[in-house]
Amino acid sequence: MLSDYATCLGAVRAQHPLVHNITNYVVMNLTANALLAVGASPVMAHAIAEVEEMVGLAQALVINIGTLSDDWIVAMQKAVTRARDRGIPYILDPVGAGATQLRTHTAQQLLAIAPPAVIRGNASEICAVAQATVKTRGVDSTVAVEEALDAARGLAQQFGTTVVISGPVDHIISIEQWVEVQNGDRLMAQVTGMGCTATALMGAFVGAREAVSPLVAAVATMATMGVAGELARQQAQGPGTFVPHFIDALANLTPADLEAQARIVPHKS
Amino acid sequence: MLSDYATCLGAVRAQHPLVHNITNYVVMNLTANALLAVGASPVMAHAIAEVEEMVGLAQALVINIGTLSDDWIVAMQKAVTRARDRGIPYILDPVGAGATQLRTHTAQQLLAIAPPAVIRGNASEICAVAQATVKTRGVDSTVAVEEALDAARGLAQQFGTTVVISGPVDHIISIEQWVEVQNGDRLMAQVTGMGCTATALMGAFVGAREAVSPLVAAVATMATMGVAGELARQQAQGPGTFVPHFIDALANLTPADLEAQARIVPHKS
Amino acid sequence: MLSDYATCLGAVRAQHPLVHNITNYVVMNLTANALLAVGASPVMAHAIAEVEEMVGLAQALVINIGTLSDDWIVAMQKAVTRARDRGIPYILDPVGAGATQLRTHTAQQLLAIAPPAVIRGNASEICAVAQATVKTRGVDSTVAVEEALDAARGLAQQFGTTVVISGPVDHIISIEQWVEVQNGDRLMAQVTGMGCTATALMGAFVGAREAVSPLVAAVATMATMGVAGELARQQAQGPGTFVPHFIDALANLTPADLEAQARIVPHKS
Repeated sequence: MLSDYATCLGAVRAQHPLVHNITNYVVMNLTANALLAVGASPVMAHAIAEVEEMVGLAQALVINIGTLSDDWIVAMQKAVTRARDRGIPYILDPVGAGATQLRTHTAQQLLAIAPPAVIRGNASEICAVAQATVKTRGVDSTVAVEEALDAARGLAQQFGTTVVISGPVDHIISIEQWVEVQNGDRLMAQVTGMGCTATALMGAFVGAREAVSPLVAAVATMATMGVAGELARQQAQGPGTFVPHFIDALANLTPADLEAQARIVPHKS
Repeated sequence: MLSDYATCLGAVRAQHPLVHNITNYVVMNLTANALLAVGASPVMAHAIAEVEEMVGLAQALVINIGTLSDDWIVAMQKAVTRARDRGIPYILDPVGAGATQLRTHTAQQLLAIAPPAVIRGNASEICAVAQATVKTRGVDSTVAVEEALDAARGLAQQFGTTVVISGPVDHIISIEQWVEVQNGDRLMAQVTGMGCTATALMGAFVGAREAVSPLVAAVATMATMGVAGELARQQAQGPGTFVPHFIDALANLTPADLEAQARIVPHKS
Repeated sequence: MLSDYATCLGAVRAQHPLVHNITNYVVMNLTANALLAVGASPVMAHAIAEVEEMVGLAQALVINIGTLSDDWIVAMQKAVTRARDRGIPYILDPVGAGATQLRTHTAQQLLAIAPPAVIRGNASEICAVAQATVKTRGVDSTVAVEEALDAARGLAQQFGTTVVISGPVDHIISIEQWVEVQNGDRLMAQVTGMGCTATALMGAFVGAREAVSPLVAAVATMATMGVAGELARQQAQGPGTFVPHFIDALANLTPADLEAQARIVPHKS
């Protein structure tokens, strides 16, 4: 019998959730292919005139602020509002929060409209989002995992959301739980958009969820990413050949493979 | 002696037609590489201030509405108007028509400016475009190939255009003819932008045409796509490794290979 | 002991320069991965509201005009102004200059704000930029390398900049020097964005420079591109499989490999 985590992958493959992405230009192709590979149905749409209608068709919304402009911010706000009103989950990737005020503020404005099912970022992005909203500390020049864990707990408390801190080890945190995923390969940090891809897949896993929490779906996503990365690494000669093998691995991974290879470590929270 | 279809591929390789694309962000890199692989010269340009000038240099215009915004719609309208006035062919890909009103309306507005040489979409997109312009039926929740064929015939009649319905089997329809292309591989449906790539290549094949109809050029395009897909499938381990092999196959395919491997079946229309 | 050229690659790998790119949609993913592969840290940002702040974090700015729109032009101007005021180098890629007035004028407007450390283009782009600013000749229908060399010398004189003319042989020209790089492979011309990738990498090489001139950094960049292209060619079956192998080659290339395989030929200027 499979765990809840592995079952999530099967649910995505069975249900083909429609995932509406408003994401950055750099990763659109990669994230669309990754979504197709796990069995989801991706759509990219950002026109202010159509985002609400498109959200109306989707099982999940993914918002990634990697390449912003004024109109896209309005479209993101409209889409998040519609997702909240329809009761579908949204996932927030605050790419570059902390690097510029525009990014930090945009992430916070979206959080103020509705709490995402999951926020996923690296340690400094999670701290940047939390520092301004949770106001627990000033701006730190260096971000250690411990600080990011505190920031994540603050966000989880304030917004009732699940927070994923990506890194060599991934930390997934909710009000009640704290889980580590220890899969992955160093080569993933040399490929643009691996974090964004995790966020996009989270849309599929959360959107297809069957009576599992966003935390379980988020853990399943990070384990799927990490296991696929390990499999791709075995065939890659570098970060370039890694990418096509990674997509293959996503497409060919079975829930049983995921179960066997995932290294998921629950903590006492 | 080669058929008209296979000759089209040779014409593209010999003439290097300049294909001006206003297309969606997700597929730009893929379609540019596919156009280069068949021997065409791609250019992407969408600024309202330059699209008319760029159309003035091109042998064909490709309009793909996959990621719209207000300014892009204006640019598409200007580009189509200029293509009409210059007498160069344009190809229309109504991505997502039927999913949102913005997409359906944008496709119809472009059709109203000038009939494209070819419209290419999947069954539901072709129905969506036709239902509102040909007004033969209401909105159907499911789209069967038979319905799409009717819709395509309606569009062909009304606009004098060639219509391509992509799918496991491709149907190419004009007022006088109906041709099936039976090439391709199931993996192509797991890769984002394969339909958009077909549309882009159609710009090259129609733009380089020498005394052949848009229908022949469209059939040649779909056969080239399908044969390249079959060749790529033999080397791919999944949808990720499929893509680079597909581009290789497009680059390495000769008109004689195309002739030998294409499965083109004319119907009585 | 390594040459200055090979040392540049080591400097990029050691310093991880943050390179801020305002570049075209077609190549964003490729250039981000190429920058990561050489060891740089890429960021893409074009919002008018954030470009100045982002330039404030960067070691170099890369401006590529391949897909323009009104807002992007404003963002480019603001970014170049901020780079000038901060004293960080910027690299200009005048993609399509000469094809439309918008592109030619945009390139010239940017030059008027501040001279780039390096301008990189193909022969006709360099001529287009030079003809309107240096005003040495009318519009020529064909562009020979000799003409482009004259144009490059004019730009070097007028702006005190280094000019790279990409082609089967690359020419790198400053007021004092003229160097050829003879590496590369014909397949590179069949892949979209190879020129844009050279420009992006130049941001890394110039940004990480240690007491070397932009000319040396530009030569090192073109040699790195060319050697990586030759290595990728050995494993590629066509332009599709070339790309992932090219990124691998960039990632795996050592300064010693570069030294051994670069074919750098200084001319008497």
